[in-house]
Amino acid sequence: MMKIKDIGEFGLIDRIARETKDKAVLVSIGDDAAVIKTNKGLQVLTTDCLVEGDHFRREWLTPKQIGMKAIEINVSDVAAMGGYPKYVLVSLALPKDLNVEFVEELYNGMWKACDKYNIDIIGGNMTHCDSIVISITLTGEVDNRNLSLRSGAKTGDFIFVSGYLGNGKAGLRLFQENLKGFEEVKKRYLEPKAQLKFASKVAPYINSMEDVSDGLASEIKHICNESKCGAIIYKDKIPILDEVRGVARKLGDDENDYALFGGEDFELVYTISKDKLENINGFLVGEITKNKEIKLVSHGKEKIITGNGYDHFTSGI
Amino acid sequence: MMKIKDIGEFGLIDRIARETKDKAVLVSIGDDAAVIKTNKGLQVLTTDCLVEGDHFRREWLTPKQIGMKAIEINVSDVAAMGGYPKYVLVSLALPKDLNVEFVEELYNGMWKACDKYNIDIIGGNMTHCDSIVISITLTGEVDNRNLSLRSGAKTGDFIFVSGYLGNGKAGLRLFQENLKGFEEVKKRYLEPKAQLKFASKVAPYINSMEDVSDGLASEIKHICNESKCGAIIYKDKIPILDEVRGVARKLGDDENDYALFGGEDFELVYTISKDKLENINGFLVGEITKNKEIKLVSHGKEKIITGNGYDHFTSGI
Repeated sequence: MMKIKDIGEFGLIDRIARETKDKAVLVSIGDDAAVIKTNKGLQVLTTDCLVEGDHFRREWLTPKQIGMKAIEINVSDVAAMGGYPKYVLVSLALPKDLNVEFVEELYNGMWKACDKYNIDIIGGNMTHCDSIVISITLTGEVDNRNLSLRSGAKTGDFIFVSGYLGNGKAGLRLFQENLKGFEEVKKRYLEPKAQLKFASKVAPYINSMEDVSDGLASEIKHICNESKCGAIIYKDKIPILDEVRGVARKLGDDENDYALFGGEDFELVYTISKDKLENINGFLVGEITKNKEIKLVSHGKEKIITGNGYDHFTSGI
Repeated sequence: MMKIKDIGEFGLIDRIARETKDKAVLVSIGDDAAVIKTNKGLQVLTTDCLVEGDHFRREWLTPKQIGMKAIEINVSDVAAMGGYPKYVLVSLALPKDLNVEFVEELYNGMWKACDKYNIDIIGGNMTHCDSIVISITLTGEVDNRNLSLRSGAKTGDFIFVSGYLGNGKAGLRLFQENLKGFEEVKKRYLEPKAQLKFASKVAPYINSMEDVSDGLASEIKHICNESKCGAIIYKDKIPILDEVRGVARKLGDDENDYALFGGEDFELVYTISKDKLENINGFLVGEITKNKEIKLVSHGKEKIITGNGYDHFTSGI
């Protein structure tokens, strides 16, 4: 029988998603968040999860940093819809012998991130598990004109990203290999920030948007899949910090792989038609094509990307 | 340093909960669900979690039954608020070598329960973990006049439960001890049902309500804690199925312990003032007192209950 690590994300979603009964559901499984039409406007709902051993290790992150990260990654999903966050639910599975102070600090970190965004933790649940599993649900609101879906990309759109990529993977590699130095990269890995303000500025102008939680290649593949199109990625235009290049050089890795197939950068990738370029900032990294392949181009050479980028079932920390 | 298994639920909540900033939050951490005032009325939000090894074993429940149960336990929380369910988010942490068919059947079970309540799964997240962790978030709506909180109990209220208790624990014991027979109890353990219709009928008349997911003693303690009161529980009036008494007899257990300190019954416990008794059904099991102790009485003898009932950090399967 086929294992989930072998089927790929799209294959699995095809098997479990169904058409929703309720007409108020505008966006369901397959985007950064679900979107519901309400009397007031649009509500967005998202859930994301941090698992010990897969997303973090207690030796690397303080409990406060884990808490902050758990909130930021969910705010990033709401930002990617063009929305703003409102309410947090926290579902924790924790080992029985965990110190009370750890849970307190975890919550201190979550509240710190919530205070930054002026949002509240309004409920939750706590139960036992051998690993720490932190599952966060975040609700938000989005103005109609700002709603940014994965499905809106159009042939000819330029593809932009909001900031430097590859920091997440480079930071992870530094901790895995127990390397000294590279403090900027480590800080970005330990304390990622959602690009909420940036998202709200570009949202009125763009055709599609997504956050880069699983590597640029994977995210562009999502957009192309939902928008029924393809893309060209300009390999040499991907913005990568010098310090990240330094990490890759030191470890014999390819820094482009960090950006394309790494994860946990929490920048935004968005597509925009040429006539609206003057309205937005960011780094140009490619364009949307009619041809459904995703090609990486560099110095006239091109390579088709077939992988899924970072896949939680084929890789891990 | 103190471990979370030693601090107790109220101690931990005291350390992590904070006053919410948003005035629209009517109920936050400490009830079955959070309640938010919206333009349309009241939205309820709840999250609950099933962990392999703690809440279920793959040898006992089919993946479809696990999926059904994951939805029912959350519908039970919304029912306990006097509300009706609307939208589901599913956050899954799964072992890499799990069969695709398992995930499909898990979702089939979730969709089956959703169809029963005419609700939709609108989003989710999937990641890797050594154990199966199923974290569900459920939104719902509640009419103002039906809103049923833990904090509304009044001195002199009668305490009722909606149905038979102890089935969950008895069922668990049957599987733990690998006993044949007792099919009715096993079925109730494997396929618990939320009491949504019952809840909506009693909600307009009662002063407080909660679902019995962690044993009657624990739930009454919640109500007394939130309502600043105490309670007397009539031990001999607790409704227990003959088959559950049979399980207890066979295993040398006390069936009252199943009901008081067991878990996963998903019946409702609610309190009502004497002048409204004619409007509701259920089993009378006690009354609310001014004195803040919780006493178990039987044949003129009384015992003060100090334990937390079923506690996920001190017991497990």
